[in-house]
Formats: sequence, structure tokens, C-alpha cells
Amino acid sequence: MQQTNSRPAVGYPLYALSFRYGQRHAVELAAAERVARWLGVVQHRTVDIDLRAFGGSALTSDAIAVPKGRDVEAMGGDGIVPATYVPARNTIFLAYAVAWAEVLGARDVFIGANALDYSGYPDCRPEFLQAFELAANLGTRAGTEGTPLRIRAPLVELSKAEIVRRGTALGLDYAITLSCYDPDAEGGACGACDSCQLRAKGFREAGLPDPTRYRPGRRPGAEVPA
Amino acid sequence: MQQTNSRPAVGYPLYALSFRYGQRHAVELAAAERVARWLGVVQHRTVDIDLRAFGGSALTSDAIAVPKGRDVEAMGGDGIVPATYVPARNTIFLAYAVAWAEVLGARDVFIGANALDYSGYPDCRPEFLQAFELAANLGTRAGTEGTPLRIRAPLVELSKAEIVRRGTALGLDYAITLSCYDPDAEGGACGACDSCQLRAKGFREAGLPDPTRYRPGRRPGAEVPA
Repeated sequence: MQQTNSRPAVGYPLYALSFRYGQRHAVELAAAERVARWLGVVQHRTVDIDLRAFGGSALTSDAIAVPKGRDVEAMGGDGIVPATYVPARNTIFLAYAVAWAEVLGARDVFIGANALDYSGYPDCRPEFLQAFELAANLGTRAGTEGTPLRIRAPLVELSKAEIVRRGTALGLDYAITLSCYDPDAEGGACGACDSCQLRAKGFREAGLPDPTRYRPGRRPGAEVPA
Repeated sequence: MQQTNSRPAVGYPLYALSFRYGQRHAVELAAAERVARWLGVVQHRTVDIDLRAFGGSALTSDAIAVPKGRDVEAMGGDGIVPATYVPARNTIFLAYAVAWAEVLGARDVFIGANALDYSGYPDCRPEFLQAFELAANLGTRAGTEGTPLRIRAPLVELSKAEIVRRGTALGLDYAITLSCYDPDAEGGACGACDSCQLRAKGFREAGLPDPTRYRPGRRPGAEVPA
């Protein structure tokens, strides 16, 4: 597929899939739309799935608070799954992605899961992604006929600093992206949730300026443990 | 959990999950509600997921016809996935079921998949279900902490005749159930789709009277090859 804009040449016609799943940070979908536009995707689809009906996560239930100001340096090694884990979320996301890939005739399904800086989410680990790929190939027409489907997670083993460097090298302006679990209505980041802290740490360790737009009065340094 | 009605004692408090997925036979959801009531489930949830957005199946696309009058005796052995296959449908269903199970603290997820009489659906095969179980255990908090999740498919290796006998022995009135892919608005079965034919064959081989309600003027014998 020919592209006329300046997105990096990745070698694939891209079909982007986002989910309005009842997340409190649904403003991230506007960021997804900006990134999809920058990438010059063929199509960007946002699917409505109501995971609030099930609950069980700080991201989909108002009854569970988003943890703030945790020590991100100490996280991940304790084997504790955080309150922001959404039950089977990536399993559901990947199932939809595989369904669409099958209809499109696509064979490569990319997911931005990352396991290295933060191993608390079971569904961001390579072993889950590999097992899901096997299931997807056994459970679909696409997988049982012709070329197998591949679940690709190019960021899975990178540190946040490496991700920041990689994106910057590819020309991405991180100001159009959003990581925060608890942003304001305009997408201003809280600076204190795990996701904000890990992102800020990534820019810090990469030695690159952080273009993240924070909520009025917020900045990441204040809550990040030294 | 104590039950006061006459449902079979299965040993589990039951939570039933159905999907309004854009299927042309959405009237099956009324049948699911009848069966759930008969079973005395704690809760029956119907989740809306729009698989019509993806298409690619006779069950979710008006542009693809439901095959009628095929030779069901010859099906399954040819390795051809039928037009009624819905891309990654059971993968999506199971992903939701695992999410809900995780929130409920349930460890057993039951699915009525059946592979024996009709092996054309890749996502009804034991090898898929086993692979999905592995992925679900690697990708969820429930699976990585404590007792593993189990994907149970008690019907998967039974013939339709065995299923009919088993249900009858358990006191199920099959008149409240629906198998047809192309029923009328009242749930009258077409008698000619693969699902109707396989169901009729099951009753025939079981030697039991078939209580299925057919659409006016339809009956299964007419279209079933001798």
C-alpha cells in the first residue's frame, strides 16, 4: 500500500483496532485516533465492548480506585497483579483482533503489550501471547487453512526508555499519545498513576524531553519516588 | 447453592452467559433464557457484541446465505469450514466467559461445543479448547493465582444422538431449545440448515420423538437426504 504521509515504512497495510470498553480513561481513544492518522492506517475501528458489566478493575469500576504515587521501581517483582488489571482484557482484545484479521485476510496481529518494566499484568507476558497465538491458530479458519496467524508484540521485551527512544527515532511526537489511567476530560495526564510514572521514568532514562501534557497543577516528578 | 426447582443437580451454582452478536437467529436468545430458567441459574447475562461489524459469516452477514439441504452425512470429513463459521466466535465468547469467571471467582467455564457429528468448525475442537484453556490460565489473574481455570466442554465428544438421550434423561424438554440458523421471528425452525438436519438426525438415531417446533409448512424429513 502506498502512503503519502511521512509515517515510518513498516511494510504492512495497517488496520487499527481500538476498544471503548468502559475504561475511565476513554479519552485515550482520541489519542488512538491521532496515532492512527499519523500512521496512515487503511482503517481505524473502535469497537464498543462493555467490560463495566463485569467490573473487577480500577479501570472499569468506579468502586475501585486507581492507585497513585506507588513506588514504580519496586513494582513487578512482587508477583502481585495490580488493581488496574482488567479481567481477561487482552484476551478479549486479541480475540476481536483475530476475528477481524481473519475477515481481512491479514496474518499478522500486532499488540503493544509490554512485560519488561512492569510484569504485574499476566496478559502482557510473552508466554500468554504465545499460548494465545496457538489457540487462535487452532480455533480459526485462518489458522487451520494456509499461513498461520502470528501475534506480534514488538514492544514486549523493551524497557520504557527503549520504547521512548524507538518511537522518537521513528518520528513519533509523543505529545499526541496518552498513557495515563486517570486523565482529565481533555486528556491531561495525572502524573501519579503507575502508567504516568513508568512513562515519565522512560523519558528520564532515555534522556529525552517529555512532551506529555499534564492536568493543570500536575507534574510527574512531584509524586515519583526519588 | 440450594435449588428449589427440578433441574438436575450439577453441583455448581450456575452463571449463564449469552451473546447478542448480530446473529440472524437472535431469537435463540429467548430459548437461552428459557433454558437458563429451567436450570435455575443464579444469573443469566446477555452481552451485546457486534460481530456484524466484521462480517465474514452467513450467520452475521446478510450478503452470505445460510446453506440449506446439504448432505449432513457427508459433512465434516472434507475439512472444509462451512459458511456458517463465524470468525473467532468461540474465542471471543470464551474470552468474555473467562473475564466474568475471574470476577465471580468461578473456576469452571462450560461451553456446549460439539466436534463429533460435525468437525467443520475449528473452534469446536478439543485441541482448540485445550489451547484456549492454557492461554486463559497464562493471561488472567485467576489463572496465575491459585486454582487454574478449566474450560469444560461436556458435549464435545458426544454424537447428537447421545446429546439428545443425555438431555432427555436429565429431564430437559427440547421444545424449549433452538438449534436452527434461520428460524422465523417466533423461533420456528427451518428444517433445512445444517443445524436443523443434524438435530433431526440426532432425534432419529436416538429413537426419541422430536419436539422441535418448525416454521409453518416446514419439516426436517423433506430436506434431509435419505
